[in-house]
Amino acid sequence: MRLRRSGPRALALAALAGAALVVAGTGALTSIAAGEPAATGHVREYWVAAVPVTWNVVPNGRNAIEGDTFTPDKTVFRTVVYRQYTKDFARQVGKQPGNEGIQGPLLHARVGDTILVHFRNLDTLNNQPHSMHFHGVRYQFGSDGSYIPGFSGPGANVKPGETFTYKLVAERESAGVWPYHDHSPSMMPSIEGGLYGALSILGPGERAPDHEFVVFLESHLGFMTIDGRAFVGNTPVFRAKVGDVVQWDVLALGDDFHTFHVHAHRWLTADGPRDTQVIGPAESYKIRWTEDTPGTWLYHCHVESHMMNGMIGIYRVSR
Amino acid sequence: MRLRRSGPRALALAALAGAALVVAGTGALTSIAAGEPAATGHVREYWVAAVPVTWNVVPNGRNAIEGDTFTPDKTVFRTVVYRQYTKDFARQVGKQPGNEGIQGPLLHARVGDTILVHFRNLDTLNNQPHSMHFHGVRYQFGSDGSYIPGFSGPGANVKPGETFTYKLVAERESAGVWPYHDHSPSMMPSIEGGLYGALSILGPGERAPDHEFVVFLESHLGFMTIDGRAFVGNTPVFRAKVGDVVQWDVLALGDDFHTFHVHAHRWLTADGPRDTQVIGPAESYKIRWTEDTPGTWLYHCHVESHMMNGMIGIYRVSR
Amino acid sequence: MRLRRSGPRALALAALAGAALVVAGTGALTSIAAGEPAATGHVREYWVAAVPVTWNVVPNGRNAIEGDTFTPDKTVFRTVVYRQYTKDFARQVGKQPGNEGIQGPLLHARVGDTILVHFRNLDTLNNQPHSMHFHGVRYQFGSDGSYIPGFSGPGANVKPGETFTYKLVAERESAGVWPYHDHSPSMMPSIEGGLYGALSILGPGERAPDHEFVVFLESHLGFMTIDGRAFVGNTPVFRAKVGDVVQWDVLALGDDFHTFHVHAHRWLTADGPRDTQVIGPAESYKIRWTEDTPGTWLYHCHVESHMMNGMIGIYRVSR
Repeated sequence: MRLRRSGPRALALAALAGAALVVAGTGALTSIAAGEPAATGHVREYWVAAVPVTWNVVPNGRNAIEGDTFTPDKTVFRTVVYRQYTKDFARQVGKQPGNEGIQGPLLHARVGDTILVHFRNLDTLNNQPHSMHFHGVRYQFGSDGSYIPGFSGPGANVKPGETFTYKLVAERESAGVWPYHDHSPSMMPSIEGGLYGALSILGPGERAPDHEFVVFLESHLGFMTIDGRAFVGNTPVFRAKVGDVVQWDVLALGDDFHTFHVHAHRWLTADGPRDTQVIGPAESYKIRWTEDTPGTWLYHCHVESHMMNGMIGIYRVSR
Repeated sequence: MRLRRSGPRALALAALAGAALVVAGTGALTSIAAGEPAATGHVREYWVAAVPVTWNVVPNGRNAIEGDTFTPDKTVFRTVVYRQYTKDFARQVGKQPGNEGIQGPLLHARVGDTILVHFRNLDTLNNQPHSMHFHGVRYQFGSDGSYIPGFSGPGANVKPGETFTYKLVAERESAGVWPYHDHSPSMMPSIEGGLYGALSILGPGERAPDHEFVVFLESHLGFMTIDGRAFVGNTPVFRAKVGDVVQWDVLALGDDFHTFHVHAHRWLTADGPRDTQVIGPAESYKIRWTEDTPGTWLYHCHVESHMMNGMIGIYRVSR
Repeated sequence: MRLRRSGPRALALAALAGAALVVAGTGALTSIAAGEPAATGHVREYWVAAVPVTWNVVPNGRNAIEGDTFTPDKTVFRTVVYRQYTKDFARQVGKQPGNEGIQGPLLHARVGDTILVHFRNLDTLNNQPHSMHFHGVRYQFGSDGSYIPGFSGPGANVKPGETFTYKLVAERESAGVWPYHDHSPSMMPSIEGGLYGALSILGPGERAPDHEFVVFLESHLGFMTIDGRAFVGNTPVFRAKVGDVVQWDVLALGDDFHTFHVHAHRWLTADGPRDTQVIGPAESYKIRWTEDTPGTWLYHCHVESHMMNGMIGIYRVSR
């Protein structure tokens, strides 16, 4: 890996900082470049299929804070989502704690790993092609999963009944959390339908948190949703106790920009502490803290109309 | 305070940088955690009430740059705002220079301080409950000021005529500028009505600036406003002279994203110099410089329709 | 130049980091201030005129990915744009590779330079006043180019047939990429019409990249455009080969926020690696990498409706 830099001071700081901080001495955001060593770690293998489900955005039919009620004809839809399977697609795997929404499995890896994702299109609902396009990782053209007329191969246009394997490498600069989503010719309706998920990559030597909470901000059926659900009572209730290391994986897709806020907590960015942070479509970040503030707290998008239209949940911290 | 980190390099840099910079060696934004020492500083006490006012968004009735004119029926409304009082609510205090708009008082503290905000609901206009929810500071559940059905206490739902005291602690990571606002059941109309303000917390040993300018970006009556006013001639005229240390407290609430711009000036972020910077609802940042550029300058949101609809003002620098 | 700081650690780190990184120990974004030395470098002189052109947003008449077609009455308009001239406006200069769109010339300078931009208004189409307002550089009031009734001078309101010279200084904190645009009384329609461009300033000792790609995000005729073009096949095809240093100059104007994404590549920000990054009106950043990933890649705004409405292009990397 070579880092672009503009002078010896930038180099000195880069040496201190390792991969994550590069000082752009001239205002440039600086990137990762040629000479990346081959992956040296393990191979992680996942089996993921696009499958039909019936999804209810507001299972309890109400907005507990404002008091509105909703009938199922406004909140339930048939759609296609990513679900995890055991080896060779033997059987579907249940959702993991912290990632129990409409989104696909939370795929885990560590820097240095090669990740093989075997994708099968089981879309018997719309009978459309689908794909998986991964952010944050290194891959060759065939594993891009994005449809470009005249260029793209089978991985960008997996027909119903077909299977394709994406080969991805978690580089040093892949550490963090990233979205994956359909990028086939049916991408537009598919993402609105829930065909997305998160990929979480630990750095070398980084410990896994005690709790990992996926917060996927999107809209469905006109509601503003977290993990495909709207309003307190439907959105995830995340739980931790004092002393736990908690990690929030915040991601967004669609058309909207959001400001993610957790009550009574702050986190440090390179520009100082924040308790509210912008996120736009396909952006993602992870936030970690060791919990020390017991209580029942709201987490929500702070765009008022989003919050009022469902993008709000509860985080309970016990002693 | 313990910082989450992922390796010795991150630690080394964090040690250099102190509180404000944490190197996220694995792409994580890193937070403040358990073991925070108790507040060691002074107790600051404020008295703030929600009171009715008549507010004119465009007092001079015109957009000086485009030439449009507006009659008072389009620009004046009755609303409820936060205003500061002397001890025990004896009498209302006038607005401070640099913070003379619709927003509440600019509350000051220093890291280590405990802040007591005595809040009285004097809403005789709409007769609604109100509250104060503070960003950036540490507090226990009872001082959160946010309405959660079945959980929240009296501080989240202060009825007309009642008083509640919020107890807040300015931690090391509370340094900066933060919004406060209504988070009671009537939050939605109240924030649109102007029930918000700013909290400014100096770091340990940090000197106060010579001028502190509050720039609160919101919309009122369909105008895009700065401190509740629209168009040059109505929005604040901020003034400084060469050699002064000026601080801009930039905050936003509502539904909209903005890009704050000051002509002929730049500021440094961790990603290099900027003269225009995104801000979304409930985000906030402060910008400081020692003034050296005399002239009559525009400051404005650079979203074109916002600028054209009022979100623009003048900053005059004399020699 | 004096940097505002809040303690010795901030100073130490600033010393390491040079101009680009200032640690805001108290959460403040810290700025550049008084005592700026006079420019010590060369004088760069440019001749730029506002001239009428006929512009086609979708020259091939189609959205290659979705298959829609468009007739010229929906895609062609007469407008006024910035174009570069040789000394004393002798003759118009062709567009540079990497900057071949509707936007004006890519103006180059280096920190320390004085930049003289001779601007001539040749708007025979709308017969309106125009100006040039530059971001990122230092100038005196007369070179601001922004119309303020009662204050501004001739440089803010250059009448058809007239010429004005803007004098700008590239300070140390001017390194980076910045927009310039009309800020005269006819600013609003002019920017929508394409009267904007980019200014690229190298740091002291910084090498120019092998390729510099200008990505200007705006909307025209209802299409979401890159450099004034919509859809793959019309937007720029950028090209590089493995080993080249490529630089992306990403800028936006107008009303919309975007998330810029390049497939199969990542870049480092102070908050860790990213492959998608928010940009709002008048914001700008540059991204550099040494290319090492051959393939045919999409670059696009990741706001779904923007991408689907034209804001997408192709980047081809050969071995």
